[in-house]
Amino acid sequence: MLQLSFSAEQSSTPLYEQLYRAIVQQIQQGQLLPGEKLPGKRRLSETLSVSINTVNTAYQLLVAEGYLEARPKSGFFVQSSVGPIAASCQPVTLPNLSPVSSFQYDLSTGGIDTSLFPFRTWGRIQRELLYSQPELLNRGHAQGDYNLRCAIAEYLRAYRAVDCTPEQIVVGAGIEYLVGILAHLVSGPIAVEDPGYRRTQQILTNSSIPCIPLPIDAHGLNADLLQQTNANLVYVTPSHQFPTGAVMPVGRRAALLQWASSQPERYIIEDDYDSEFRFDLRPLPSLQGMAGNGGPVVYLSTFSRSLAPSIRIACMVLPQNLLQRFHSDFSSYSCTVGRFEQQTLRIFLQEGHFLRHLSRCRNQYRNRMRLLTAALTQVFPKDMLTFSGQHTGLHLLLSCNCGLSEEELVSRAKNAGIRLSGLSDYCFHTSCNPHTLVLGYGALKTEQIEPLTHLLATIWGVGLP
Amino acid sequence: MLQLSFSAEQSSTPLYEQLYRAIVQQIQQGQLLPGEKLPGKRRLSETLSVSINTVNTAYQLLVAEGYLEARPKSGFFVQSSVGPIAASCQPVTLPNLSPVSSFQYDLSTGGIDTSLFPFRTWGRIQRELLYSQPELLNRGHAQGDYNLRCAIAEYLRAYRAVDCTPEQIVVGAGIEYLVGILAHLVSGPIAVEDPGYRRTQQILTNSSIPCIPLPIDAHGLNADLLQQTNANLVYVTPSHQFPTGAVMPVGRRAALLQWASSQPERYIIEDDYDSEFRFDLRPLPSLQGMAGNGGPVVYLSTFSRSLAPSIRIACMVLPQNLLQRFHSDFSSYSCTVGRFEQQTLRIFLQEGHFLRHLSRCRNQYRNRMRLLTAALTQVFPKDMLTFSGQHTGLHLLLSCNCGLSEEELVSRAKNAGIRLSGLSDYCFHTSCNPHTLVLGYGALKTEQIEPLTHLLATIWGVGLP
Repeated sequence: MLQLSFSAEQSSTPLYEQLYRAIVQQIQQGQLLPGEKLPGKRRLSETLSVSINTVNTAYQLLVAEGYLEARPKSGFFVQSSVGPIAASCQPVTLPNLSPVSSFQYDLSTGGIDTSLFPFRTWGRIQRELLYSQPELLNRGHAQGDYNLRCAIAEYLRAYRAVDCTPEQIVVGAGIEYLVGILAHLVSGPIAVEDPGYRRTQQILTNSSIPCIPLPIDAHGLNADLLQQTNANLVYVTPSHQFPTGAVMPVGRRAALLQWASSQPERYIIEDDYDSEFRFDLRPLPSLQGMAGNGGPVVYLSTFSRSLAPSIRIACMVLPQNLLQRFHSDFSSYSCTVGRFEQQTLRIFLQEGHFLRHLSRCRNQYRNRMRLLTAALTQVFPKDMLTFSGQHTGLHLLLSCNCGLSEEELVSRAKNAGIRLSGLSDYCFHTSCNPHTLVLGYGALKTEQIEPLTHLLATIWGVGLP
Repeated sequence: MLQLSFSAEQSSTPLYEQLYRAIVQQIQQGQLLPGEKLPGKRRLSETLSVSINTVNTAYQLLVAEGYLEARPKSGFFVQSSVGPIAASCQPVTLPNLSPVSSFQYDLSTGGIDTSLFPFRTWGRIQRELLYSQPELLNRGHAQGDYNLRCAIAEYLRAYRAVDCTPEQIVVGAGIEYLVGILAHLVSGPIAVEDPGYRRTQQILTNSSIPCIPLPIDAHGLNADLLQQTNANLVYVTPSHQFPTGAVMPVGRRAALLQWASSQPERYIIEDDYDSEFRFDLRPLPSLQGMAGNGGPVVYLSTFSRSLAPSIRIACMVLPQNLLQRFHSDFSSYSCTVGRFEQQTLRIFLQEGHFLRHLSRCRNQYRNRMRLLTAALTQVFPKDMLTFSGQHTGLHLLLSCNCGLSEEELVSRAKNAGIRLSGLSDYCFHTSCNPHTLVLGYGALKTEQIEPLTHLLATIWGVGLP
């Protein structure tokens, strides 16, 4: 039997919805039984002092959802198939979000100097596009807008010696996404660099591609070791190995290409992460370009590093075979990068802002790297510190021979509010160089360098006499 | 022996790079042999009439890449490991991009009316964020910014009766991406609606989850059929089935929940696509909300539909178990939606613009749907046309009983410049209703309606006397 009491004045919920909810509740709790007839609309509207329209809307909604059945000329009845809902409604205990840690000095490798971002230019281009090109609201190409891919191909050709056409480029919202797609196009296992980029290993593992870590040396990965595995794929960072900064010499590159070409369906995945930031010379040409357009190299690059981590635009260059597979399996997908953002980047590239931005960043970061190494050298005793990998990327390796273990160096730094990693954080099996730290200085402010170096010397128990 | 001739004036490439390239070429072509000594820097600079700095930079670059070896006090030598590169450089023939077809009338289901987009408000919020919150350039949370998730949770709770906390929400650049992630968290096979959303089937298949199509009826999917399969998962569009528009009544919903709750690791994936556009009544509450926060439902929704296809923001609500798996496997990923875009949406939601925008769109689209059905009814003979599914989404089903097959109806339309699909395009096995078309009117302009209906009548050989 329907028993309703609701106070219309006290709620902002529409009346029909209050009525609807009350009836649903009574059905779910078994107060209104299957087959039971509901009051006529007019009668109920009088009882509740609401309009007949309100009752009608609520009843229609209940019919549309299957709670009630409308029988012509006889009225509304509770559906016979409806009973109390028995879904498993266990109480939920939610895990805490890992709180964002607030370190005083951030030396993690992901940071950048946000003040270098070209706000004015980026904002102007974005604004002009929004008001002048409403057609950009429509769905675009699965690989990204063609004209953006032209601009990217041109940039990659000129500055990274990548040999590709716009048709081979797939634009996506970050390397993670693109590697996930790529994992579907190839078959593993895959050899990865050790030490290396842990996140890539996670993505490949998530995509059911087993990883085989191979130890690297001062020249990066060695194809001889690769030959001894059953890997069909290898993931490398030849322009500057992450995190050691090793540059793979041309002999090793040629050997890698030989390995890949010696059997069908072997591919080299070249992650060109951070190659824009090379300080001693111009960035080294890509392995993809060395192999040529028909070669077995998948080239990966991201603009999240050169522009900002929160701007999610990356790209990959696919060889012919993989491109055909992409077309057959992914052509119905939407590109994961919004088209206004794609077009903003295109104009930013084509008008030359990107190269100017890179050159400005390079100068700033080079200075910061020099100030940091100089300050450390000044504060620490002679020969205690060794730097490496400082000519590329926005981090360097620091070996500190002061008697403390890597673990101790890291934990003392963390306790003092300095966020940094040890090299072993990037190692799979290989025993890394002892007491080596990875110092990212992208987010480090110039004025922080001096107090930071003194703090490090203090907590590590080192100091000039 | 090094033999160089290059004309410095005729190129914009830096001199050192021209020199570098010339030497690399000679090494690769075997004109310079392994172990061969290169000319001294001073001598070469005089021979070529370039600065000694130019030669030095080129040599350094060649050393860095491993082409040359610098022997102290004796000079530069071609590395012994370098020979002609033998990578497989087959000529590449690239597939043509499928050209974007230019139909005069676009009745595909993906279109929207771009003139309804809130350019001014969206642009203002975007601009203010860019200039006032540079910290948004930094990396954000893998699930999306917390305050955006709060705003989404609030909206979903109020308007879709979704019962979730912000901690359960994962923001991503489109349903494709999120379903790809989800596929990793669950195990198949999965039952899907037939007819249904083909793109979802593609994504699931790409993610190695086998699909079992189940025929639907006027009330959507039936849990009795589901029981007869070995599926652990089911993908449904209960609020309005795609593409038929069927609304799943509460009895069927309860049966689905019973099915899922009766065994561990069974999940219902509820795609709430398009539910914002319901014209006869307010949108029906979600199945997720009916199951409650502890229930076995993954809820999917996208803003690409309600804002614009090219704005790639979607979200999913994960039940507790799957959330824990997400945390362990995906917490190192970057969110695929840029943070400026995330924050623009947050403010757009929190300041009430989104609800106003939806209500404006709903009015416009409802009118368009009414004009279209009225115009068709007027032009075609009585009882020849049957409409269905017109009260939800931006498309309707049109059955045309004029003696032509569905295939013929579609192909005549295409030849006349009208882009539309037949219902069988959405069917897996089921034999669909004959001669039924899916007409999307999101991108159809009001002034196109009359000429379109006359054109359809003409090409289908129908006309009022």
